[in-house]
Amino acid sequence: MMGMDDDHRMDVENPLMGSYQEKPRTFSSLKNKPFWLVQTALRLDRRVYYLLALFTVFFLFYIGSQSSPIILFVFTICIGSLVYAIYLASWVLAKDEGPPEMSEISDAIRDGAEGFFRTQYGSISRMAGVLGFVILGIYMFRKSTPEQEAAGLEKSTLAFITSLSFLLGAVCSGIAGYIGMWVSVRANVRVSSAARRSAREALLVAVRAGGFSALIVVGMTVMGVAVLFASFYVFLSVDTIHNMKMTELPLLLVGYGFGASFVALFAQLGGGIYTKAADVGADLVGKVEQGIPEDDARNPAVIADLVGDNVGDCAARGADLFESIAAEIISAMILGGTMAKRCKLDDPSGFILFPLVVHSFDLVVSAIGIASIKGTRDPSSKSLIEDPMIILQKGYSVTLFLAVLAFGGSTRWLLYTEQAPSAWFHFALCGLVGIVTAYVFVWISQYYTDYKYDPVRQVALSSTTGHGTNIIAGVSLGLESTAMPVLVISLSIVTAYWLGKTSGLQDNQGIPTGGLFGTAVATMGMLSTAGYVLTMDMFGPIADNAGGIVEMSQQPESVREITDLLDAVGNTTKATTKGFAIGSAALASFLLFSAYMDEVSSFSGVAFTTVDIAIPEVFVGGLLGSMLIYLFSAWACAAVGRTAQEVVSEVRRQFSERPGIMTYQEKPDYARCVSIVAAASLREMIKPGALAVISPIVIGLVFRLVGQATDQPLLGAKAVAGMLMFATVSGILMALFLNTSGGAWDNAKKYIESGAFGGKGSDAHKAAVTGDTVGDPFKDTAGPSLHVLIKMLATITLVMAPLFLDN
Amino acid sequence: MMGMDDDHRMDVENPLMGSYQEKPRTFSSLKNKPFWLVQTALRLDRRVYYLLALFTVFFLFYIGSQSSPIILFVFTICIGSLVYAIYLASWVLAKDEGPPEMSEISDAIRDGAEGFFRTQYGSISRMAGVLGFVILGIYMFRKSTPEQEAAGLEKSTLAFITSLSFLLGAVCSGIAGYIGMWVSVRANVRVSSAARRSAREALLVAVRAGGFSALIVVGMTVMGVAVLFASFYVFLSVDTIHNMKMTELPLLLVGYGFGASFVALFAQLGGGIYTKAADVGADLVGKVEQGIPEDDARNPAVIADLVGDNVGDCAARGADLFESIAAEIISAMILGGTMAKRCKLDDPSGFILFPLVVHSFDLVVSAIGIASIKGTRDPSSKSLIEDPMIILQKGYSVTLFLAVLAFGGSTRWLLYTEQAPSAWFHFALCGLVGIVTAYVFVWISQYYTDYKYDPVRQVALSSTTGHGTNIIAGVSLGLESTAMPVLVISLSIVTAYWLGKTSGLQDNQGIPTGGLFGTAVATMGMLSTAGYVLTMDMFGPIADNAGGIVEMSQQPESVREITDLLDAVGNTTKATTKGFAIGSAALASFLLFSAYMDEVSSFSGVAFTTVDIAIPEVFVGGLLGSMLIYLFSAWACAAVGRTAQEVVSEVRRQFSERPGIMTYQEKPDYARCVSIVAAASLREMIKPGALAVISPIVIGLVFRLVGQATDQPLLGAKAVAGMLMFATVSGILMALFLNTSGGAWDNAKKYIESGAFGGKGSDAHKAAVTGDTVGDPFKDTAGPSLHVLIKMLATITLVMAPLFLDN
Repeated sequence: MMGMDDDHRMDVENPLMGSYQEKPRTFSSLKNKPFWLVQTALRLDRRVYYLLALFTVFFLFYIGSQSSPIILFVFTICIGSLVYAIYLASWVLAKDEGPPEMSEISDAIRDGAEGFFRTQYGSISRMAGVLGFVILGIYMFRKSTPEQEAAGLEKSTLAFITSLSFLLGAVCSGIAGYIGMWVSVRANVRVSSAARRSAREALLVAVRAGGFSALIVVGMTVMGVAVLFASFYVFLSVDTIHNMKMTELPLLLVGYGFGASFVALFAQLGGGIYTKAADVGADLVGKVEQGIPEDDARNPAVIADLVGDNVGDCAARGADLFESIAAEIISAMILGGTMAKRCKLDDPSGFILFPLVVHSFDLVVSAIGIASIKGTRDPSSKSLIEDPMIILQKGYSVTLFLAVLAFGGSTRWLLYTEQAPSAWFHFALCGLVGIVTAYVFVWISQYYTDYKYDPVRQVALSSTTGHGTNIIAGVSLGLESTAMPVLVISLSIVTAYWLGKTSGLQDNQGIPTGGLFGTAVATMGMLSTAGYVLTMDMFGPIADNAGGIVEMSQQPESVREITDLLDAVGNTTKATTKGFAIGSAALASFLLFSAYMDEVSSFSGVAFTTVDIAIPEVFVGGLLGSMLIYLFSAWACAAVGRTAQEVVSEVRRQFSERPGIMTYQEKPDYARCVSIVAAASLREMIKPGALAVISPIVIGLVFRLVGQATDQPLLGAKAVAGMLMFATVSGILMALFLNTSGGAWDNAKKYIESGAFGGKGSDAHKAAVTGDTVGDPFKDTAGPSLHVLIKMLATITLVMAPLFLDN
Repeated sequence: MMGMDDDHRMDVENPLMGSYQEKPRTFSSLKNKPFWLVQTALRLDRRVYYLLALFTVFFLFYIGSQSSPIILFVFTICIGSLVYAIYLASWVLAKDEGPPEMSEISDAIRDGAEGFFRTQYGSISRMAGVLGFVILGIYMFRKSTPEQEAAGLEKSTLAFITSLSFLLGAVCSGIAGYIGMWVSVRANVRVSSAARRSAREALLVAVRAGGFSALIVVGMTVMGVAVLFASFYVFLSVDTIHNMKMTELPLLLVGYGFGASFVALFAQLGGGIYTKAADVGADLVGKVEQGIPEDDARNPAVIADLVGDNVGDCAARGADLFESIAAEIISAMILGGTMAKRCKLDDPSGFILFPLVVHSFDLVVSAIGIASIKGTRDPSSKSLIEDPMIILQKGYSVTLFLAVLAFGGSTRWLLYTEQAPSAWFHFALCGLVGIVTAYVFVWISQYYTDYKYDPVRQVALSSTTGHGTNIIAGVSLGLESTAMPVLVISLSIVTAYWLGKTSGLQDNQGIPTGGLFGTAVATMGMLSTAGYVLTMDMFGPIADNAGGIVEMSQQPESVREITDLLDAVGNTTKATTKGFAIGSAALASFLLFSAYMDEVSSFSGVAFTTVDIAIPEVFVGGLLGSMLIYLFSAWACAAVGRTAQEVVSEVRRQFSERPGIMTYQEKPDYARCVSIVAAASLREMIKPGALAVISPIVIGLVFRLVGQATDQPLLGAKAVAGMLMFATVSGILMALFLNTSGGAWDNAKKYIESGAFGGKGSDAHKAAVTGDTVGDPFKDTAGPSLHVLIKMLATITLVMAPLFLDN
């Protein structure tokens, strides 16, 4: 089918995956030499790997035993879940790839995705490298904090620590993204093939593939933070001869969080532009102009579209969740440390390491949830006995139930202190607030995006009066859908803060100090089932791809029905994960904001506890922060529009120059579309990305200068704080708006396709397709980039804080 | 043509307009008895009017002479400009109404507009009445401020003052709206008729009609505030035996501002929904389904559409500008008073009354600007010698130049103080900052909405790839267009604040206090040509209506060309006024926010000088405030969508039941469409309006209770402050986005209609029409309601402040 290539350079056995063999490249134009380090690594004997693994484990247990038994516990669990994840992967990879017509398509998708990934991460890593040096420079010239001076910490040590943890965060995020994509491009064809035998088996393959990358992503986040923490603890000799206390340590981790969110932002932007430009471009010519179905093999952009699902949804979402958890863990550790210091707790380690333990349990309960989804007794049965959504939700219920128990246990274990004997119970309730919030968020996004409910049906109804009324209805729905989540998040912030404040923890002046930590615990509660949620999220694009492969390889109707069903479920889980991601981003940013204030206080030596928006410059900072969100969204949407137009031109050109394509006599040139989209997305991701990285720095520096000129100390830091808060609020609202209206348009179209208002081909359907096209960049490019953006803003201000302060 | 009615009840000579005769009603279904007071008033002899006018003038000069010579000056100018405005109106009304086929259409429009206005303002006045009682109740039970107690001011006196000034503001706003509409429904047909003779004459009629209502609106705002101020001064015996000082007086005016913005909000909502529902409904069936031109007499919704221009654009914009100026004057007076008190100035009257003088000069320079537009020497010339936009801009240049001079003079006259001899010059520069800001704002909105420039052309280009890409491009453009205005407004806030701060004005501890007043002066500078800007704005819908009348009465092509040209210019001026309105709303809200803080300090007796968003409840208040903007916009857009669908059904029904309509054999039932739209808009304006009025009160009360429960004083007031600031920022951005994308879609369609990308009837044109439809509720319903909303929020919190405080 596609030009095969007998290059066997990559045909090296993967040392960890047993009998699994890498397949040769399909698109010769996308051949890329792997990086020399990877090349060398792949050439090594398998025994070298075992040795390295053994050494790593030994190292981990050494630094764990030197720092805290809690760290040891965390390492053990992480290693255990890594082993389980590898088991899941080998189970998936042992499945067959189906007939050659399937695996050929899958190979093409894989090559396209891996080619784009390499180029994209090449650009990102160059930018990260430059930024690493910038951070090094900034920290070389900044003032040390009194605590650091007392601890005898050199400026240069601190500079290297921050800069290297930034790079480590970036690399780990890259690996998380890579693994997400690596497994999905291999699982998709196995799901298609399994769908020929049984629906249940297909579901199982998709779930376990998703579970593999989810466990790896969560595990790597926890492991990364734990390793950094323990290494700093050991090598900086914390809590021993020097004065440096464990409560100071978490502030050294901010670089890691920034590295993670920096990479996640560009991954989401590039991937999001790629996937939607290909999708919109393919649909505009294929579906609208030529009237051929979606994922039809004659469409030259169809492979690019399928590649897009992998780089946009799998890789980007992996990096995104990695970053969410990293940011949340680090900010909660900082707040825990600050609180422990204020309350002068004897042993602060419980409060500081609590987030790591929560996510260790997250790994365990999610693994159990994944394992609870099993094959049926009758594997030959072709039809599903149950709705796949119900199967997934059963697994979620198991996970959720165990998570509540584990969370309660962790609070009692780590947050019990004689100073405030009931504090642990207050914090357990905070966790419950978070878990309930996540659950309600998921429910709200379902209500607004599922066509079982009234809102989407209204959008479908308004399609009957034309394109214009469809768009107006979708926009109104999206704008309206912000109300409930905001009320819920408001309620949970206030409740968790109050629960924390009344926990009994007090500083030495008797002032309650647990409020912010309460909010932090609620955030952890919200993310306490992250592993399972990510599994459900990864499930979506894998099923989507499987459907595409089934369609392109022209399988019988019964097979298509199975993959269509899985695809529909995937759409729902994808939408709900976004609600989840926004909710946690809102809370995490609020925490990072407090961490930022701690950081500024600590560097400047002046207490920075209030952000007064009645100061014109702070208000202006806020105005600029909100504007940043609008401009970023504009550029992200416009990038999709521009790239899609390039695809449209190319597809139109192929159809007109090769009329044989439409009659199946000629093969379209898939590779050309793939490389056009890849090149354009890489170009287009730079502008919004650079805006996001540079703006906070510029705002901070300008207002620092204004402050110097007008004699207002800390003005730069204050204006940045204003920017951060307003950007967070605007970002949450804009992301909710974009995601929900996009999802609603998509499902309104599906509802009409299911037969409502005239069904496929009616005028209402045409109007609904317009809505779906508009919704694509909303829900898959700008929307998901925004919640990454607000956390990136929070971490960049944390790391760049010294820049905004007078020396 | 339409069923004539020989009812001569309204056939009473207007005592002020000389020979102008009211015409009888056209739609018998819309006949409404005028309110008995109006009936009685209309029956009076002309001499009674002259007597009343004389008495009023005498009263004004009496209270003026008792309070301040500045007030006398203001009264004199206002009366002078009133006389000039009446001259303009009688000049316009003396023009002929053209042939019967024109005047019949115009009569129908007039009756529809006046019928809707009566019903709408009936609802609004009932709501205002209830609210007046609520305010009375609140102020009866609140604490008095120490100053008021010292002045011996009774609680009940204060309650009546606030409640009555609220009602006065509401009534004046209603009159302003009525006058705007009154003249436009009479001028439209005169413009059409003049267009048959000469383009220049048509332009002149439209400009002078617009000028009339502009001068009345601005004059009435200034007069209203001045009368209230002077009355309070005289009847409360300020500055005499009691302790009450003039610096306390402006705070008593807040009720007036709230009354004005309350009415403006509902006027804009109801009118905005009306105009766009009729427009969208008429277009969806007429243009899209039946393929008949816009404003074709066969379309049953065409009269409703033309009525909409009057109630949506003229009446609502009159109320809007009235409210803008009122809010800005009052907040600047409050800040002037506060500053004068802090600096212990000997004579604070200059600082307090400065805003009134600025707008008196505004009346003079705008009148000169309007008068500078004259007929050509050769009145028989059919073609315009110049582009009408250039003629209007010449007038604007004259006004602007004089405004700068007048502003400089006013600052020297009123803001010179020996305590800070150079302060007046600093404030003159602040005014210049404001004037430049307004100018740049206007330029930016032109750049983004005029098809001479690249952005709109890009939207037009993206229409060639379909409906979806057109929408994506428009949305991106709108989101992007927020950036420049925000940068400009940020720069001007910081600059004006800094200029004010360095003016040399200091309190008795030597702390500079002029910063906020500097921002206030910049706002005044921005609005210092409000009269002329409003004239240009009113010009738009009058020209639009004239075009409709010309089209419906099937005039020759040459006449249509003239009205089309004027209509195009009107679209541009309309778009630029919106930019102007948002810019001033942003600044005015910032001032009102400071006034709110002063008010809370004064009531609570606790200094309320910082709004710390690091307090979770304040942050939550902000989150809710931003959300309010999204929800309000959603409901406003959805209201248009729903109402338009009712229109679509009705128009479809008429076409199918009376096939003779399409062949001109039957008359469509215009009145039915008019009353359907009217009823639906009145119903639909309640939900978003009530949301806006009730939310701040609920937020304030809830957080007041939370504050009592958690022992945080002033929490209610603080959360409301957070809400206000975040709502302001989000509101500005959202309004910019909605207005600009709407304007750009409209003009992208016009650009294609001018022949680009295939011209009328091409696929690109169809896509552009979709964009235009989506843009309609954006730019004429939600967008302009938003900037009224943010000022309404600011004034309602000012008036309701006592509710948020513990007793």
